[in-house]
Amino acid sequence: MPLVDTEQLMESTYRQMELSTERMRENLKGVRIVGVHSGKGGVGKTTVAINVAVLLAKNKRVGLLDADIDCPNVPKMLGITGTLATENGLIQPAEKHGIKVVSTALMRADDTKPFIMRGPMKHHILMQLLARTNWGPLDVLVIDLPPGTSDVPLSVMQLVRPDGIVCVTTPQDVAVLDAKKSINMARSLGVRVLGIVENMSGDVFGAGGGERAARELGVTYIGSVALNGDIVKASENGAPAVEASPKVRNDFERILEAAAL
Amino acid sequence: MPLVDTEQLMESTYRQMELSTERMRENLKGVRIVGVHSGKGGVGKTTVAINVAVLLAKNKRVGLLDADIDCPNVPKMLGITGTLATENGLIQPAEKHGIKVVSTALMRADDTKPFIMRGPMKHHILMQLLARTNWGPLDVLVIDLPPGTSDVPLSVMQLVRPDGIVCVTTPQDVAVLDAKKSINMARSLGVRVLGIVENMSGDVFGAGGGERAARELGVTYIGSVALNGDIVKASENGAPAVEASPKVRNDFERILEAAAL
Repeated sequence: MPLVDTEQLMESTYRQMELSTERMRENLKGVRIVGVHSGKGGVGKTTVAINVAVLLAKNKRVGLLDADIDCPNVPKMLGITGTLATENGLIQPAEKHGIKVVSTALMRADDTKPFIMRGPMKHHILMQLLARTNWGPLDVLVIDLPPGTSDVPLSVMQLVRPDGIVCVTTPQDVAVLDAKKSINMARSLGVRVLGIVENMSGDVFGAGGGERAARELGVTYIGSVALNGDIVKASENGAPAVEASPKVRNDFERILEAAAL
Repeated sequence: MPLVDTEQLMESTYRQMELSTERMRENLKGVRIVGVHSGKGGVGKTTVAINVAVLLAKNKRVGLLDADIDCPNVPKMLGITGTLATENGLIQPAEKHGIKVVSTALMRADDTKPFIMRGPMKHHILMQLLARTNWGPLDVLVIDLPPGTSDVPLSVMQLVRPDGIVCVTTPQDVAVLDAKKSINMARSLGVRVLGIVENMSGDVFGAGGGERAARELGVTYIGSVALNGDIVKASENGAPAVEASPKVRNDFERILEAAAL
């Protein structure tokens, strides 16, 4: 026997990856998976993911996975606290505003403690959340992706293979630039792009960047969400803005229609 | 000889890491290193890093490293285009507004192509940028970090060991939450926190979250930068807002003083 049995370690690591991919597929069989992404952070991916999920839940069974493993914000913005229970080794999602929610923010008591970890660990956690959550019957799973074109977005696009990606941008040039990277990433990995949403549109940040990018890249321009104190207030209160503001609800109804969600 | 000489591969990988760490230390000997971080994206880390660097350059020799390896925005916001030259195997930084700038955005012609890569590759590129750039004589190196508490921020805090970290937040709860994670990360890795800057302060996003977080965590509250169309416009035009707007310059002069930069 060698000091470290590398062969057995590799075999079991490989088998574990294969198993978690199989379990993930089995667990999400027949579920429509929609990813919300952008290259840049802070453009409102979580706002879009939450409001889309809550609105879809009016006539569908909807899950929302917070895939920002190290800096998760979904529970805070939905007013969900506490830690998730497990039953028979399966994670029980939280339920609020008609949707089922899983997030690493619901895995420990002190939410100011950082998850300091490298990519492979984030990948592993992502796969566990997908494979080992007891979602119950679902029609749609919305995945709120972290920014960037690295580990977690790559794992989701390569292994989870969503039915479509909604790309979020703000009107500013730098955000539009990163939205293009996001769309080119999805394309190069063979994932369908449902289109671009322009968030925080109007006033301070300008408008039209999202529509221009959609035209340049030949993807659908889904629509815009106006920069709006209602959305900020709703998030601070842990309530989805579609429920608090008829104006925001109207914006998101148009988004669901344009993205054929 | 085995088919794959794992021993030699490990030896050379290890030696390469050791060498790049040594080279990085040698290359930055005597340079004050300041990181700009936040857990959340889109809070204005790059805006703060750029404006701090440009203002510091009025009486110091300043470098700015864009450490957002996969979605770099510094060159776009400074109006720098083209690709960097190398000389004798060393990267020649771009020079603009009195500072020397290195970014992966200046490493290929098409800036809409994504860098799709996992953490270890980002770590490797980061170390190369630090070790193999011909900065010339520098007093200060400002590092614009990507969001999150994972690979690149971890590599910088663990291996580069900056003299201090400026933490950026917006007034909103979710951003403040992630700022706390950023500060707790720096603390747990033994990196000094210079304090918190509140960006996009006032009006739409509210105000006071940064100051409250500073009090709760017992760190310096450095000051705020008002949410301001001038900053957005300056970024779109590739000009630092401290040069375009006396009001913004005033905000940043207070920041340099309060952070003892």
